[in-house]
Amino acid sequence: MRRKVAIVGTGHSIYGVRNDVNLPELAYESIKEAVDEAKIGLDDIDLVVVGNVGGWSSEYLPAIVINEYADLAGKSTFRIEAACATGSAAIKTAVDAIASGEADIALVVGVEKMNESLTPVVVEFIGRSGNYFWEFQNFGLTFPGYYALYATYYMFNYGVKEEDLCLIAVKNHHYASMNPKAHFQRKITVDECMKSRYIAWPLKLYDSCPISDGSASIILASEEIATKITDTPIWIEAIGSASDTSNITRRKDFTGLYAARKAASEAYKKARLDPGEITRHLDLAEVHDCFTIAEIMAYEDLGFAKRGEGVKLIREGQTYIGGLIPVNLSGGLKAKGHPIAATGVGMAVEIARQLWNKIERGRQAPIKNGRGLAHNVGGTGHYAYVTIYSLTKPRG
Amino acid sequence: MRRKVAIVGTGHSIYGVRNDVNLPELAYESIKEAVDEAKIGLDDIDLVVVGNVGGWSSEYLPAIVINEYADLAGKSTFRIEAACATGSAAIKTAVDAIASGEADIALVVGVEKMNESLTPVVVEFIGRSGNYFWEFQNFGLTFPGYYALYATYYMFNYGVKEEDLCLIAVKNHHYASMNPKAHFQRKITVDECMKSRYIAWPLKLYDSCPISDGSASIILASEEIATKITDTPIWIEAIGSASDTSNITRRKDFTGLYAARKAASEAYKKARLDPGEITRHLDLAEVHDCFTIAEIMAYEDLGFAKRGEGVKLIREGQTYIGGLIPVNLSGGLKAKGHPIAATGVGMAVEIARQLWNKIERGRQAPIKNGRGLAHNVGGTGHYAYVTIYSLTKPRG
Repeated sequence: MRRKVAIVGTGHSIYGVRNDVNLPELAYESIKEAVDEAKIGLDDIDLVVVGNVGGWSSEYLPAIVINEYADLAGKSTFRIEAACATGSAAIKTAVDAIASGEADIALVVGVEKMNESLTPVVVEFIGRSGNYFWEFQNFGLTFPGYYALYATYYMFNYGVKEEDLCLIAVKNHHYASMNPKAHFQRKITVDECMKSRYIAWPLKLYDSCPISDGSASIILASEEIATKITDTPIWIEAIGSASDTSNITRRKDFTGLYAARKAASEAYKKARLDPGEITRHLDLAEVHDCFTIAEIMAYEDLGFAKRGEGVKLIREGQTYIGGLIPVNLSGGLKAKGHPIAATGVGMAVEIARQLWNKIERGRQAPIKNGRGLAHNVGGTGHYAYVTIYSLTKPRG
Repeated sequence: MRRKVAIVGTGHSIYGVRNDVNLPELAYESIKEAVDEAKIGLDDIDLVVVGNVGGWSSEYLPAIVINEYADLAGKSTFRIEAACATGSAAIKTAVDAIASGEADIALVVGVEKMNESLTPVVVEFIGRSGNYFWEFQNFGLTFPGYYALYATYYMFNYGVKEEDLCLIAVKNHHYASMNPKAHFQRKITVDECMKSRYIAWPLKLYDSCPISDGSASIILASEEIATKITDTPIWIEAIGSASDTSNITRRKDFTGLYAARKAASEAYKKARLDPGEITRHLDLAEVHDCFTIAEIMAYEDLGFAKRGEGVKLIREGQTYIGGLIPVNLSGGLKAKGHPIAATGVGMAVEIARQLWNKIERGRQAPIKNGRGLAHNVGGTGHYAYVTIYSLTKPRG
């Protein structure tokens, strides 16, 4: 029997350009919040999973240094990396450790300090996370270019315009403006977005997430412990995960991400949710909007809309509060920011606090089903993790 | 109830300077052997855990590229890093995934291609895996220096001489000379070792493991599947893991590694083995001899000898076949080589094949207890993993 696992504490640093702190200090901002919220002692923690991609930070092997700074030296620990899906992969390994009985309480911290390197270095490193040899080295593809290929294909097939993409940015900046932890805390207009400079046509600066520093942490516990700590544990109902070819040139279609569809399908099956009516089961979703086109594809890959119809959701405002399914009420990667390994953990923190009704006015979703979804992608769907969080203890 | 997990297939590349292959090709050498030995199809694999430290290889995010080359694109996957203990950490996450019921069959591959960078770059990167800011940047400490501190302290306290350290190198080269997969396949003498140049006094070139490229893979399966695949699954009886401060200057003593003692104690407790008579339970051990002094400290940290008496074991030949406990019959890190993320997985491969009586003549241990131990350290005990492998299904 798999043991049930739940979130009992959450922490979230301010995302942004964080030259005011070093890597372990940045990690500790969220670790402290999470430990305090769970009201546990550091001695209670059996396992520390550190999500960090690194390469742009001077600390080459960060897990030990972060543990030491947080007074957690001695614990069982390791570092996880799954590109921009690192945070979700880190959660999965901690959940498995608790579910199997190897640990009772685990800390998961995702942290990234990307602005320690110069922007061209960061863009090069991120670009390599496709296939270095074939696509980065030979064709010079970096991430705006990859997603621009998806955007042009989608626009060509479904009559979507650049203005439609900007609607995503407007929504996510709208909600980020109410999130004190967000990288960008101001609203933008479609006009501003349309006038921003091209990064890789048709994607403009305002279609793109920023290069952020930040950390997010959760405390996970077994059922026995979680129910003692809190009356409202946030259960990990299901995790679906998948991967895809590292060569974009080998992808079969460019209107969605195969790995995301596969991960969603697995998560829905494990949670026994009807994929055809998935929005009826959820109160909100945090999806991986590294570029605006990615959020529209996510709507379709997750089954919120049929293929080619995701754009209708944003045109009709269906992914605002009050619509079919509120998406990225945190501001998303686009406006809350994207410190890459923190992102998946930050999604978990946002969903837990939404389900707890602890969010700032104006961006708190109405909670009816007690269930939220996180969609976290690495690369352009090289990795995908879909995680279902619930106030209701899973059956079985 | 935690599900039981066993090794059902093993693969091991040739370790050495492998400029003949790229990273995924090197990984595939061991993946293919392991999959073939387990007689499974690639479709049967639910999870691929890739152990890789990287930084010296051009592929920045290697898991996806390796999966694709091995025709495993689409699988649930992530990369693990725990410095030189990466291989064991990778095994732990896969074991937890199977034990919890999230996967039935997992592939664990540890791979490192260190010679793709110039030696000074590699030495710098490895050096950073202490504490970059305090000890590497400020004091210029790299790994030979760290272990030299331990060696001088040990020599001062227990009257050990440089010749004693060389005895470890002689033993491990002796066994590596019979291992066709080893980086160094020739015997050496104490005299040769003593005449080799100093790297960091008292450690000489022949006290030090080489910078190796290589990969190792295992297929892990749940009890139900493992017992169908083979009559002699190698059970994961217990895994102990711990960490320590990243600052050597904060360590309390220099005659052993706190994290290794803690990991061993946890593993013995989980496997219900008497720590006072541990050698009676084991047929062999693979220990982390990145420098010769490290093997002597391992004898003591694992309880094979009392504090200060580990050196007697090598002086008396007790860690050769026929002695109290044969250690590093593979040649160890010292002579089989140390492609850092492959090392822990390579230890598992060696122990499984020893327990299966499949090893070359001259370095096959007599198998009586059906049990072997792997001791895998990251940094200078920043991380430690101790894993017990057994032909007998664990109780409970």
